[in-house]
Amino acid sequence: MVRRARWVRPFGAEPGGAARADVPSVADLGGKGASLAEMAALGLPVPPGFTLPTALCSAYLGAGRKLPPDLDAEFDGALAELERTAGLRFGDAADPLLVAVRSGAPASMPGMMDTVLNVGLNDRTVEGLAQRSGDSRFAWDTYRRFIQMYADVVLGLDVDRFERLYEARRRDHGERPWSDAELRGVTTAFLDLAATESGAPFPQDPRAQLWGAIRAVLESWNSRRAVTYRRLRDIPDTPGTAVTIQAMVFGNAGDGSATGVGFTRDPATGAPAPFGEYLPNAQGDDVVSGTRTPRPLTQLGRIAIGGAEPSLEEAMPAVYGRLVAAFRVLEQRFGTMQDVEFTVERGRLWLLQTRSGMTSTTAALRIAADMAAEGLTTPEAALRRLDPASLGRLLHPSVPVDVKREVLARGLPASPGAATGAVVFTVEDAQAYAARREPAVLVLTDTSPRDIHGIHAAAAVLTSRGGATSHAAIVARSMGRPCVVGAGDVRVDAGEGRFTAAGRSVKRGDIVTVDGTSGEVSLGALPLERAALGGAFDTVLGWADRARRLRVRANTETPEDVRLAREFGAEGIGLFRTEYSFLAAEPLALMRRLILADGAAARADTLAALRPLLQASYTRVFARGGGLPITVRLLDLPLAAFMPHTPEEITEAARAARTTEAEVAARARALAEVNPVLGHRGCRLAISWPDLYAAQVRAILQAALEAEAAPQILVPVISSAAEFEVVHRNVAAVAAEVAKSSGAPPPYSIGAMIELPRAALEAGRLARTAEFLSFGTNNLTQATLGVSRDDAAAFLERYRRERILSGDPFVTLDTEGVGELVAGAVRRSREVRPAIEIGVCGEHGGDPDSIAFFHRAGLDYVSCSPYRVPGARLAAAQAALAD
Amino acid sequence: MVRRARWVRPFGAEPGGAARADVPSVADLGGKGASLAEMAALGLPVPPGFTLPTALCSAYLGAGRKLPPDLDAEFDGALAELERTAGLRFGDAADPLLVAVRSGAPASMPGMMDTVLNVGLNDRTVEGLAQRSGDSRFAWDTYRRFIQMYADVVLGLDVDRFERLYEARRRDHGERPWSDAELRGVTTAFLDLAATESGAPFPQDPRAQLWGAIRAVLESWNSRRAVTYRRLRDIPDTPGTAVTIQAMVFGNAGDGSATGVGFTRDPATGAPAPFGEYLPNAQGDDVVSGTRTPRPLTQLGRIAIGGAEPSLEEAMPAVYGRLVAAFRVLEQRFGTMQDVEFTVERGRLWLLQTRSGMTSTTAALRIAADMAAEGLTTPEAALRRLDPASLGRLLHPSVPVDVKREVLARGLPASPGAATGAVVFTVEDAQAYAARREPAVLVLTDTSPRDIHGIHAAAAVLTSRGGATSHAAIVARSMGRPCVVGAGDVRVDAGEGRFTAAGRSVKRGDIVTVDGTSGEVSLGALPLERAALGGAFDTVLGWADRARRLRVRANTETPEDVRLAREFGAEGIGLFRTEYSFLAAEPLALMRRLILADGAAARADTLAALRPLLQASYTRVFARGGGLPITVRLLDLPLAAFMPHTPEEITEAARAARTTEAEVAARARALAEVNPVLGHRGCRLAISWPDLYAAQVRAILQAALEAEAAPQILVPVISSAAEFEVVHRNVAAVAAEVAKSSGAPPPYSIGAMIELPRAALEAGRLARTAEFLSFGTNNLTQATLGVSRDDAAAFLERYRRERILSGDPFVTLDTEGVGELVAGAVRRSREVRPAIEIGVCGEHGGDPDSIAFFHRAGLDYVSCSPYRVPGARLAAAQAALAD
Repeated sequence: MVRRARWVRPFGAEPGGAARADVPSVADLGGKGASLAEMAALGLPVPPGFTLPTALCSAYLGAGRKLPPDLDAEFDGALAELERTAGLRFGDAADPLLVAVRSGAPASMPGMMDTVLNVGLNDRTVEGLAQRSGDSRFAWDTYRRFIQMYADVVLGLDVDRFERLYEARRRDHGERPWSDAELRGVTTAFLDLAATESGAPFPQDPRAQLWGAIRAVLESWNSRRAVTYRRLRDIPDTPGTAVTIQAMVFGNAGDGSATGVGFTRDPATGAPAPFGEYLPNAQGDDVVSGTRTPRPLTQLGRIAIGGAEPSLEEAMPAVYGRLVAAFRVLEQRFGTMQDVEFTVERGRLWLLQTRSGMTSTTAALRIAADMAAEGLTTPEAALRRLDPASLGRLLHPSVPVDVKREVLARGLPASPGAATGAVVFTVEDAQAYAARREPAVLVLTDTSPRDIHGIHAAAAVLTSRGGATSHAAIVARSMGRPCVVGAGDVRVDAGEGRFTAAGRSVKRGDIVTVDGTSGEVSLGALPLERAALGGAFDTVLGWADRARRLRVRANTETPEDVRLAREFGAEGIGLFRTEYSFLAAEPLALMRRLILADGAAARADTLAALRPLLQASYTRVFARGGGLPITVRLLDLPLAAFMPHTPEEITEAARAARTTEAEVAARARALAEVNPVLGHRGCRLAISWPDLYAAQVRAILQAALEAEAAPQILVPVISSAAEFEVVHRNVAAVAAEVAKSSGAPPPYSIGAMIELPRAALEAGRLARTAEFLSFGTNNLTQATLGVSRDDAAAFLERYRRERILSGDPFVTLDTEGVGELVAGAVRRSREVRPAIEIGVCGEHGGDPDSIAFFHRAGLDYVSCSPYRVPGARLAAAQAALAD
Repeated sequence: MVRRARWVRPFGAEPGGAARADVPSVADLGGKGASLAEMAALGLPVPPGFTLPTALCSAYLGAGRKLPPDLDAEFDGALAELERTAGLRFGDAADPLLVAVRSGAPASMPGMMDTVLNVGLNDRTVEGLAQRSGDSRFAWDTYRRFIQMYADVVLGLDVDRFERLYEARRRDHGERPWSDAELRGVTTAFLDLAATESGAPFPQDPRAQLWGAIRAVLESWNSRRAVTYRRLRDIPDTPGTAVTIQAMVFGNAGDGSATGVGFTRDPATGAPAPFGEYLPNAQGDDVVSGTRTPRPLTQLGRIAIGGAEPSLEEAMPAVYGRLVAAFRVLEQRFGTMQDVEFTVERGRLWLLQTRSGMTSTTAALRIAADMAAEGLTTPEAALRRLDPASLGRLLHPSVPVDVKREVLARGLPASPGAATGAVVFTVEDAQAYAARREPAVLVLTDTSPRDIHGIHAAAAVLTSRGGATSHAAIVARSMGRPCVVGAGDVRVDAGEGRFTAAGRSVKRGDIVTVDGTSGEVSLGALPLERAALGGAFDTVLGWADRARRLRVRANTETPEDVRLAREFGAEGIGLFRTEYSFLAAEPLALMRRLILADGAAARADTLAALRPLLQASYTRVFARGGGLPITVRLLDLPLAAFMPHTPEEITEAARAARTTEAEVAARARALAEVNPVLGHRGCRLAISWPDLYAAQVRAILQAALEAEAAPQILVPVISSAAEFEVVHRNVAAVAAEVAKSSGAPPPYSIGAMIELPRAALEAGRLARTAEFLSFGTNNLTQATLGVSRDDAAAFLERYRRERILSGDPFVTLDTEGVGELVAGAVRRSREVRPAIEIGVCGEHGGDPDSIAFFHRAGLDYVSCSPYRVPGARLAAAQAALAD
């Protein structure tokens, strides 16, 4: 066996030659290097070359910018082999080999690192190039381009000076063609400028040029823009970029030459026909620079835009035929649509790069369905490739990319989709608009649970405070309302009925558009579009449903949400947040009266009035549930959330409870908590106010009997088995009463919400009585990390910037910390009750990475907001396929 | 081997007879039964009898009040043996055996359960008793007493009717002695009354009486007062009470008879001489009822009170001699002072009970030291017996029990000790009093960190809100200021300069006394006393120091605390809360200016002014530390804590920062947090405001260099290793600067505070860089249980009442939940760095049960407030001895 070289990886040496290399790995060779090796191995035409692996970059940067000593010998061997394959010699004055030195990282970082083309040209080899090509102008123009690129990338000179010099010469020169001498003159001026600016003659030694270019590419890994790009996209800083040294081919070598980019299918629609652009007699950067308008690849493409210039299909039919044949080979190999860079040099096609193409979600679904039908991929492979998060975006209306907009403010994109409406500042106003069927955008400093009906009534929500998991964000997401939070520049003056942002004052009734996908808030009504869900959507999600083990349920607030959840394929309601039922106008008034009630009789009367209202709401929920499992969480609000705030509300509450306004205010003050999230809520309130919870449980069970449903009753804020047992007993007592009065025992099960670290540690003991467990991972994250969701924005952003956190732990589960508690709780509870049902009802249940963790942890289901259900189905399938 | 009886345990059958029984166990026999068996085994004179074990009570109550079928045969055997030993027969008309049926639980529950004496008397046996005793009046009086007691305890009749009947007869009768016939007449009237009230004749069958009495005693375990008593003292509800059936002896059998209670040493002072009281010709309940005044046991005791009646020592010298000899035997056996009940029947001494005596803490220490010196106990045994919590109380002034007081309000006893002072309502006022050296009592609705200097200036603190671990409580405890919190009836009107409570209005300057040991607040100056710490205190704590493995350090706020902590034997400062240094007037003003500062230059100037102030404070701390290890925690306050609240403060802050009052108010609003305890604090602020923390670290390190100290720098609010590494690097950078400017590298170590669940889970990774770990168990409990200390009062009290919690998790560590995180973190961190130093700086470090856990978990030290240090030293010794 031939010893594998440490630092060089040749490719495309000769047909089948690359088979000597290992299977190309993106981690080792970078995306570009790996794709070249792959294409060479497939027998496709690739200019020969070799790649220095990413490990070299680590070694170079780690050793204080020193190249390893054993590189030289391997490098010389690889270069000699390249010369042999190309039939040219590097630095040869008569017929020189020119090379491109290209960067290429394992993750796509388009344009972030450097490339140097045409390395090997100097005052002598330029003559050889002129001779060989028979095109002296081409040779001198190529030399000039090389000097400018080298001055920029390797010497670090100001590229504007070269461009200004060239522009000045062109202005002086006018429209007539350049003579050889004139072209030489410009090039000489470039050489002089480079020497003056750098303080040394421009390097004439091709080897020195080559090593300079290689070092520059390696160092571009740590350029400011590359570092910033990685930080923004969570791309790791190691190992670094690979460097590919490849024989130059010239799309600008006269007629019969061209350069272009082709997609194997239409990236916008997914339609199964080649798509792309090319430029005759041009180099790649001419396409990028936009100085010339590219032409369509295909005849159909030309007809579609009414173009006059011939397409590649028409201009070079043989070349086009070879390109389309190559497309087929690549799709077969990669199983998805490819994005290919190519050059034609004097009628000969060369492929320079291929990668899996970026497409719209609609196109991605169509491509997956079509290619599986065509036998080019399998459902499993196609499922792995799709992005679960994109499915949710597909379900929402969006602002087309090219729409002009006047952006008022940017905040955190908290709930996807876009909506237009009139600005309102109060819940009542939002409800008034909804009653008139006019869309409203609710603008608030921040939201509290009491705003829930306003969020429901509004078309979209904007807040100036809060993070991605603030109250407003969670509620808006679960209701599918577009929402932007934490728009710090928005100053809300609700009293005056206006807000200011970007120097504009926006008043009540003004129309704005909230884009919860991008986080932008714009003035006026922007046009919106929504993708049509076609057969491909159903095909792909059908595959996902067959592949996954995790069940997917939905978190909902209202009966309407339940219907929506089923439409998106939810297999049950993993969390019905009952707060909506409690905070409607009538129950809210009764809750206030209950809190202010004096004596047992007044309490009993109030609860008797409250119960039928709750029951009616649960009846609607069960009716829309269509027999699917429905988890109803017991009330999880602190009493303070019910108290009135405005003078009018206080007056009304005092009147209804036959007490004084001072007493109402005193009660509200007494109920206010320093840290409400760790306060008197959930099962704690269930234990201290058992009558209130008995009324709720009775409402649930009676509604369930009517609807023939078997609800799962979820007890929130549990921290010990003893607490759960108290509530468990109380619920059983109500069930016994219902059985006695109705003659039938109401079917139900009861479980504990694991949202505090101690509950996770206590899961074994909880499983003795709890029939199911549901992780409230939002709160569990909050308590485990000691980070208040409402206050975290002040430092979490900096944490992400400084890479103290790799992501937002409220978006993607912190598997090291919170995940350990989750996995431990699953183990402990299954030891006691092997068949216990375990799910997640925190919003992590809709996040693909978190879903992968929940799958591995052995959970039974995840539950997320309705719009995230399709993505969760896909992510659950991907998790199962990764096993 | 004789099969051990299941349900009966005989004792005192004959000299050495009890050796047949197993070693008496309190769990099996109850306290009384075990002490009788012990005394019998020691050969001391005990009336013979047998005990039905506690398991019988469980079985009886568990089986729906049914006695087990195999009891009868064993019982009959035991009764027969008792008859044989006593030489009398139960129910014998001529010479009847009478028995006492007594309760006795494993835990002391004095007077909470029932006892029936003289069982076996009826219309026939009373004649036999009269015959045998030669005292007809004694026999009939005893029968009457039995009827009343039986009617009360067994028949459940209203005892007042019997007493009213007896009083009426006595009134009619006058002063002359009763004739036999008259006594018989009263007794007959009692029998009639019992028959009328119960609707059945009074039971004449001695066996029926006996079983009735046994059942009544068993059932008294679940009487309301017994259940309440257990609940209040955390005594478990199982197994139940034992029942002792014992031959009656009569202290009221004429001259030469007596009954009394004796202590083997003086329970008030611990002086090594017998102490006690007796009554000639009386039964035990005569001593208890207080109708006759008991006489001193000893001649010295009589002389001390100037009594005229002879002491037992003088009246019955032989009996006294036997009693003192028995005292010696008991002290030898039990190793501590005994509290003994005895009866003398016609010159013969009988011991009825012995138990380890309750004493003052001063006496307990003296007794321990003396008895170890006398060879009656060992230091180890004495250490096990002492109550660590009592040591802390000893250090504080207290209100003598018998002082009359006018109680204004009761709250939670949050910081022990008592103090008197003038009522003030503001920090400034408290400081003004302190400047005049007049004591002040600071009265507030609740406290915030900004009140710290007021608490320090005040003699005592009273708040109307908050729990035992509220801010005020923690700070007051650490400073040794008596403190009562959560006195809900106190309505504070600081604006008017007064508070109202118990219908009184107390205004600024009025004198009150705050008793932080009892929770009482009284009007006026009450006399206070403080125990003198003698040699016994040092002797006992010297033993403790030799026995323990855990080191004990102190949590402190001020340089003065550091001195106090050393006086109480602290081996270092486990937590110096730096907040005190930041919140003094001058640093506070600078912090406000920093928060409001505009631009880098203004920040730098402000920090340059702040640093020397901090440094001076640390210099004082290190100077008083005397070379002991000192842990300085980095600033752990949210910025909001520094913001001004009153209009005057806002104006002043705006002036100092050259900004507007509106801007100050806006900044304060922006900094307010929804859940401050989970907010932007500790290391989070250290990362976002590195310049502020660099100033603090520089102040610490420069002060340390001056004082030749090697501080341990503690980083609070850590939730990940990545966070800790950032702060670690920043601190190292400051240390390098200090080394450069001073020429000497400042010695220090750096560690992480484990106060969030995730930090505990992350301890292994933390240990890679952290040189020590310190558990902040207050906050760790808060986050793990999801219970805000400031808001928990609303439900924790009910949780304790309903036994959902066995204790306050902020007082005694929740070993199941929080303890699991602690133990896991110790294990993980020691795997990575075996020699890592691990301590606790939460107030659990002063709680004996928690200290036992920390010892078992393998921690290196605990740290608590200075006044708790001696108790912690003792508790640590007890934990080591329990190994």
